[in-house]
Amino acid sequence: MKEKLALLKTRLAEISDLGQAASIVNWDQQVNMPPGAAEARGNQLAILARVLQEWSTAPELGKLLEELAPYAETLDPDSDDARLIKVSTKDFHKATCIPTEYVVEFNQVTAVAQQAWVEARQESNFAHFLPHLEKVVELRQRYASFFPGVEHPYDALLDDFEPGMKTADVKAIFNTLRPQQVALLQSIAAKPQVEDAFLHQPFDEKKQWDFGVEIISKFGYDWNHGRQDKAPHPFTQSAGRTDVRITTRVYPDFMNTMLFGTMHETGHALYGLGTAPALDRTGLDGGASLAVHESQSRLWENLVGRSLPFWQHFYPRLQEIFPAQLGSVSLEKFYQGINKVQPSLIRVEADEATYNLHIMLRLEIEMALIEGKLAVKDLPSAWNSRMQDYLGVTPPNDAKGVLQDIHWANGYFGYFSTYALGNLVSAQIWEKINQDIPDLAGQIQAGKFAALLTWLREKIHVHGRKFEPQELVQKVTGSSIEPAPYMRYLKGKYSSIYGL
Amino acid sequence: MKEKLALLKTRLAEISDLGQAASIVNWDQQVNMPPGAAEARGNQLAILARVLQEWSTAPELGKLLEELAPYAETLDPDSDDARLIKVSTKDFHKATCIPTEYVVEFNQVTAVAQQAWVEARQESNFAHFLPHLEKVVELRQRYASFFPGVEHPYDALLDDFEPGMKTADVKAIFNTLRPQQVALLQSIAAKPQVEDAFLHQPFDEKKQWDFGVEIISKFGYDWNHGRQDKAPHPFTQSAGRTDVRITTRVYPDFMNTMLFGTMHETGHALYGLGTAPALDRTGLDGGASLAVHESQSRLWENLVGRSLPFWQHFYPRLQEIFPAQLGSVSLEKFYQGINKVQPSLIRVEADEATYNLHIMLRLEIEMALIEGKLAVKDLPSAWNSRMQDYLGVTPPNDAKGVLQDIHWANGYFGYFSTYALGNLVSAQIWEKINQDIPDLAGQIQAGKFAALLTWLREKIHVHGRKFEPQELVQKVTGSSIEPAPYMRYLKGKYSSIYGL
Repeated sequence: MKEKLALLKTRLAEISDLGQAASIVNWDQQVNMPPGAAEARGNQLAILARVLQEWSTAPELGKLLEELAPYAETLDPDSDDARLIKVSTKDFHKATCIPTEYVVEFNQVTAVAQQAWVEARQESNFAHFLPHLEKVVELRQRYASFFPGVEHPYDALLDDFEPGMKTADVKAIFNTLRPQQVALLQSIAAKPQVEDAFLHQPFDEKKQWDFGVEIISKFGYDWNHGRQDKAPHPFTQSAGRTDVRITTRVYPDFMNTMLFGTMHETGHALYGLGTAPALDRTGLDGGASLAVHESQSRLWENLVGRSLPFWQHFYPRLQEIFPAQLGSVSLEKFYQGINKVQPSLIRVEADEATYNLHIMLRLEIEMALIEGKLAVKDLPSAWNSRMQDYLGVTPPNDAKGVLQDIHWANGYFGYFSTYALGNLVSAQIWEKINQDIPDLAGQIQAGKFAALLTWLREKIHVHGRKFEPQELVQKVTGSSIEPAPYMRYLKGKYSSIYGL
Repeated sequence: MKEKLALLKTRLAEISDLGQAASIVNWDQQVNMPPGAAEARGNQLAILARVLQEWSTAPELGKLLEELAPYAETLDPDSDDARLIKVSTKDFHKATCIPTEYVVEFNQVTAVAQQAWVEARQESNFAHFLPHLEKVVELRQRYASFFPGVEHPYDALLDDFEPGMKTADVKAIFNTLRPQQVALLQSIAAKPQVEDAFLHQPFDEKKQWDFGVEIISKFGYDWNHGRQDKAPHPFTQSAGRTDVRITTRVYPDFMNTMLFGTMHETGHALYGLGTAPALDRTGLDGGASLAVHESQSRLWENLVGRSLPFWQHFYPRLQEIFPAQLGSVSLEKFYQGINKVQPSLIRVEADEATYNLHIMLRLEIEMALIEGKLAVKDLPSAWNSRMQDYLGVTPPNDAKGVLQDIHWANGYFGYFSTYALGNLVSAQIWEKINQDIPDLAGQIQAGKFAALLTWLREKIHVHGRKFEPQELVQKVTGSSIEPAPYMRYLKGKYSSIYGL
């Protein structure tokens, strides 16, 4: 069995190495590729995806996993080897459930749909996107049919992003969360609003960038295993534990995008950089799920980066860098400004109090589409009425409404909820950290993040993909994913800012 | 047969796409990779190389090529399809002649040898490199044995860089060239020397960079299909015709490295960008050989970039950018300075009059090593005595002598001669261009390069790898590779500079 296990690890290492190479090619596409190389890049990525798909579904791999199943049962179920066999077996079965023709068709349809979405959004013309989205929805419904054992068709989609998570769980969480978020929003709206005009001023781009570098270097981002580049749509790319890169967008007249975007992506990167070296090249390196990943990015961006202790440390430095813009803005005003609550149309610009409401309406619509209860043509009205219900605003056009996100054009159904789940998990973890590190606020106020990062490394990062998200959250916090800590966090924060 | 041909093209496109993906990963390694990712990158590149090797030697590919051989004979022998079958058949046979174990051993030995070379060079300690180089030489001798049909064992090595070229041809060319180069050098040495101290001054790096961009934009480098980055060892990387990137090194106190390096790499890039689109994804895109590639880089760097008409156009602009450094240096002095002849120890710093002599001594040594006529342990003395004979200088230590180049540590035997052959070809082409574009000097003086680039495109670039180098040079210039035009060029140039 030792020999078979060694052979399995060799096969998985090959697949992992190839996937990392594809990551680099993808990163290059988004950061460095000359515009005229797009068609060739499509071919390069397609061939890598094909080899990866072939290797991930190779019968030899399946046979190895089958032979190793009884052996796995003799091991400590939480050991690396037991988990390796378990997770790889699930990965293999999922990959082999999907016919190759489906993969080809899905890639073709979404490539065309993506282009149609770009055009439709530019013209704010949902009708132009409609036939493409109809095909995508049909494809996603068909995808669910490859997994006839699931309770709910949406489960199959969700599992790609949140392994082991069920639609019923997500529904239950969001049904508890929604009325509390709406109520909080209403109580904030009833109070005098805060000022944030000073955030919209010219800020030298190079100085912004350097300030971001200062912050994330203190967070512990390891430049020996990372780098930061500009990109129009910021993302983090891992090519294994030793190479996790972030990208950032900088606006010359609004600093928040660079500032919180840099901290957000660094949160993702610290997770990828913290996996146990023993999991290198196994396919178990990387994050437990998108929600757990998002818990890390949102923790550094919001729980740390939008907190008062953080700015008690960093604000004097920021004022020193931008004296003309911020010299006369007090710390309190600044802190309030970056935490201003304002129901708005666009998800990616939403504040912490409204963000989850954007997600919930998307989740409800996605589920209705997959269940066949909502026709694609009725999407705009479903969208707009929910926006009014949850956020009290109605999009003036579809570009600022149902056409704002690329996810559905990409075929990503089941993805959005991970953003909101990530917020919840970040607050659950935060409460636990504050128990374990009672002096956390003091440390942040002193610009010290080592204890925080060590905690996250030891409790979360090291495990990579060994545990499913619910299992990991349970292990770390003592309960499964739940909304109460996040609501406690929001209420505490906004009570002090808005005097609730 | 049409179907088989289509299938062949599909297979070759897949191999080409994968090779391009590997090019991007390699480029990233040299330009962007965080230092701590080296080990992972080695694994990523190794798996891509393995897939490429497997696909390039797949029995199905061999069968297709065999079946298509009679069909190829019915076609115009210079047609794309006939050449595709011919070149791919040769590639396939060469790839299948080499046992996989050899490839693995070669990669292992050269990886270790490379590291040993770095250390040996730092300490100027040839003995430290000796056992590794002995292994490499033995491996290269073994390589030759996989091709028992060759006239001379060195032919097998040469063919990897100069398809179809024979050791006897190269010997004959260099035997004619050597005494003429030595005589020219002696006649220059007998004259008063020129001044170039003004080239060694502080030059702002950003201004240097921008000036390089100005020049190569005028050359016609297409930024929609290329980009320029800094790299410690400048190189050009093609990922297909639509993505050919250059890299540059900049020194703060010496401008020539940036200036001529940028033009040199652009020459390579223009070649790659000019292949006929019909050859995309066939494996026939790219250059005919390293010598033909070098003819393009050296043409733009030297025939254009070190010429008087070029500086008649660009020197006023350069003086404007660096008034303090060059305001009082006349055009004539500048032109003489950048063309100063100075026998020196280091190949990469050599001027046009001495460069080929560095190559010839390497070629003679390589051949003697492969033939077994020179023992590796006797290399330093063989090197030093030839340096004295050809260039009149003797290295004070091995770091500045036999240890200066990385090529042998990499296992590149047969590579060096392509540099000198490229010089010869550049002059042959140049004479032909001047016949076809009588006003060429005037155009360059006016900063116009379009007619020159069009000529190179139509006569050379479009053909990609369709023709072997000797065949291509014959087609373009009417004779095979020969030294006379290069010597005419050198004598003409240095007569005016040194008053020979």
